[in-house]
Amino acid sequence: MSKASSVSPFAPKTLAKLPSIEGVAFATAEAGIRYKNRTDLLLAVVDEGTSVAGVLTQSKTASAPVLACRKHLKKGAARAVVVNSGNANAFTGKKGSEAVDITVAHAAEAVGCKPHEVFVASTGVIGEPLNAEKFAHLLGDLAKRAEPDAFEKAARAIMTTDTFPKLATRTALIGDTEVTINGFCKGAGMIAPDMATMLCFIFTDAAISSDALQELLAEHAATTFNCMTVDGDTSTSDTCLMFATGKAEARGQKLITKAKSKKLQAFSEALYDLMRDLAIQVAKDGEGLTKFVTFEVGGAKSWHAARAIALSCANSPILKTAIAGEDPNWGRVVMAVGKSGEAADRDRLAIWFGPHCVARDGERAADYDEKTVAAYMKNPEIVIRVDVGVGKSGARVWTCDLTHEYVSINADYRS
Amino acid sequence: MSKASSVSPFAPKTLAKLPSIEGVAFATAEAGIRYKNRTDLLLAVVDEGTSVAGVLTQSKTASAPVLACRKHLKKGAARAVVVNSGNANAFTGKKGSEAVDITVAHAAEAVGCKPHEVFVASTGVIGEPLNAEKFAHLLGDLAKRAEPDAFEKAARAIMTTDTFPKLATRTALIGDTEVTINGFCKGAGMIAPDMATMLCFIFTDAAISSDALQELLAEHAATTFNCMTVDGDTSTSDTCLMFATGKAEARGQKLITKAKSKKLQAFSEALYDLMRDLAIQVAKDGEGLTKFVTFEVGGAKSWHAARAIALSCANSPILKTAIAGEDPNWGRVVMAVGKSGEAADRDRLAIWFGPHCVARDGERAADYDEKTVAAYMKNPEIVIRVDVGVGKSGARVWTCDLTHEYVSINADYRS
Repeated sequence: MSKASSVSPFAPKTLAKLPSIEGVAFATAEAGIRYKNRTDLLLAVVDEGTSVAGVLTQSKTASAPVLACRKHLKKGAARAVVVNSGNANAFTGKKGSEAVDITVAHAAEAVGCKPHEVFVASTGVIGEPLNAEKFAHLLGDLAKRAEPDAFEKAARAIMTTDTFPKLATRTALIGDTEVTINGFCKGAGMIAPDMATMLCFIFTDAAISSDALQELLAEHAATTFNCMTVDGDTSTSDTCLMFATGKAEARGQKLITKAKSKKLQAFSEALYDLMRDLAIQVAKDGEGLTKFVTFEVGGAKSWHAARAIALSCANSPILKTAIAGEDPNWGRVVMAVGKSGEAADRDRLAIWFGPHCVARDGERAADYDEKTVAAYMKNPEIVIRVDVGVGKSGARVWTCDLTHEYVSINADYRS
Repeated sequence: MSKASSVSPFAPKTLAKLPSIEGVAFATAEAGIRYKNRTDLLLAVVDEGTSVAGVLTQSKTASAPVLACRKHLKKGAARAVVVNSGNANAFTGKKGSEAVDITVAHAAEAVGCKPHEVFVASTGVIGEPLNAEKFAHLLGDLAKRAEPDAFEKAARAIMTTDTFPKLATRTALIGDTEVTINGFCKGAGMIAPDMATMLCFIFTDAAISSDALQELLAEHAATTFNCMTVDGDTSTSDTCLMFATGKAEARGQKLITKAKSKKLQAFSEALYDLMRDLAIQVAKDGEGLTKFVTFEVGGAKSWHAARAIALSCANSPILKTAIAGEDPNWGRVVMAVGKSGEAADRDRLAIWFGPHCVARDGERAADYDEKTVAAYMKNPEIVIRVDVGVGKSGARVWTCDLTHEYVSINADYRS
């Protein structure tokens, strides 16, 4: 943890108020896993009949909880989620799987379900054995006192270096039935999601099959969490899980089993919007940030190429430090486009900082005015747009600047 | 430029003394291109009959001088090199090519050669038009006063944020004839060479054809400059040129035209050793560094996979800041291995910090002692070794830590 971390300048003045979702309840505890005097254990309980979907890190050194989620997702049913912060239970060998087994067994007993209906996630230090005995005995009590109106408490219990809890809520109509989608997630370093963000949990009362939910979630993860980066460092623990309790069926919603169903369109849009909101909140709480930065790449050969170019910009230390210094150093944008390896026509390249065109046709714009662009760089939110001049596809990536505070936070994380 | 940049702790106490090489002469000038009161223009003159080889950046936004070198290399003959610092002449459109043409024309006239025998390189700010008229007229005088014993002056004239000039010399026997190889290069930020380092010039009196020279240079660039990174940001201007004057023929060396000739073995080894020396010097002058770090990856499926894993570690901001904080945070090594996308067996992974095994068989080593490893991290030179447990190939990458000073240098570079 940073010894001197201050709250992100982008922390919301008031947190989103999340309504309860029928069939979902939470309880948290201070288990003292690593942190003192703050909650670090979360139990979410969902009612029988809840379907589940998930996207997980593509890391080759994925954590023990990620492997358990991957296995349990195949069954498509959920009753409980256990999350701890302070220890990632990653690279912990057999002991890591054993810790997961102990946690799952205790949660299954507490909730009264099968082990494969329990999902687990851990976040914190990598490589330290996680002693599940330290908190597994608390799960029985947590199950008893789980309450529906506790999204903020839940979001706080999964924080590590985050400076604010990340919450979002949306509603959508499926047929004539209004359903709710709530989500929360955490950042704030080792963030360059490969299939999801560090940890994200989304709940809805909609009745949607696990298969259809999986398709929606993966589709939107690609353009939201996977288009966001703090430091280019993909975590061992990235986990995004979504639960649909199906309670809206009692209010007349007919179960949806196809992601492409026209009836799901409004829901899909609301889900995208919620995931986008959460992804942006993570970038806005990037470790040590002073600027929130959006890279918009157009004129590329494909969405994948545009995203790769935007990520090359968003992960460039030399460009991110220039932004921290409020220097409109668009030469470094040129460098980052060039090093991405994706097709770009150097002589048709154009670059904008906010509304100001700084370069077009492969050279500095004739009407470029350094003072104007330097003044723009003083804004807390910066948009840098690049047209690479070879096609019609575009992508957008959210990130933050690279500051002294990032170095301080990460030089001292374990001490 | 950094306002407060101090000299790298790894700056050599005494610079290598480079002997003169028959057929090579240098002159430098203060042209005031960007910097005041320091040399920023270099002319190297090589005698007729000099063969040439080069490896250049793979950036899609390569600079105008890089494009010119690529064209001139095809002819395989050299008489002059013009290098300026302070302005990279990159992303400067038609004006950029025109500046190169003016420079080449003046140099060809000054030296008395064909335009394709002139090579050019520029380093500094990207995107600012380079006014060649500012310095091209100086080349005639430089050609007249070029002198052989001026390698250090030459190395100084191409520096930007470098805190010391990078020089190296070797000798080797070809048959019974001793030949000399001299080289110099520059760093110090935007360094993640894709085919060469930022700027590197190597000279020898050996008689080797351009084709053979090209093969040797490319082979050794792969395992030296291309295994070194400061910040993962591949420059638009990376240029490594090598010149062989062939003067050793007069002393009995027979011209070599095949890179695989047994007679070239000692020369090839000496060249590798010199390039490795220069690559390490660049990493040891990485912007703002306090630690020089070597990542050695073994047990990989191929050299390419091992190099990709080592580079993933060497370019990870969260790992490099931990090293700056002297924190033996090997969990971040696990993360960086995992995010590389290359094959690795999580449960056979082993990690050493210096001589200390911190993890084996996919978990913390039983005899791990935090105090011992923390004490090791106080060393200025850190070696981190990883065995990924899936094969027999290995690679080594050199880099430095990521510090407050790197942020300071790059937040203010243009101001």
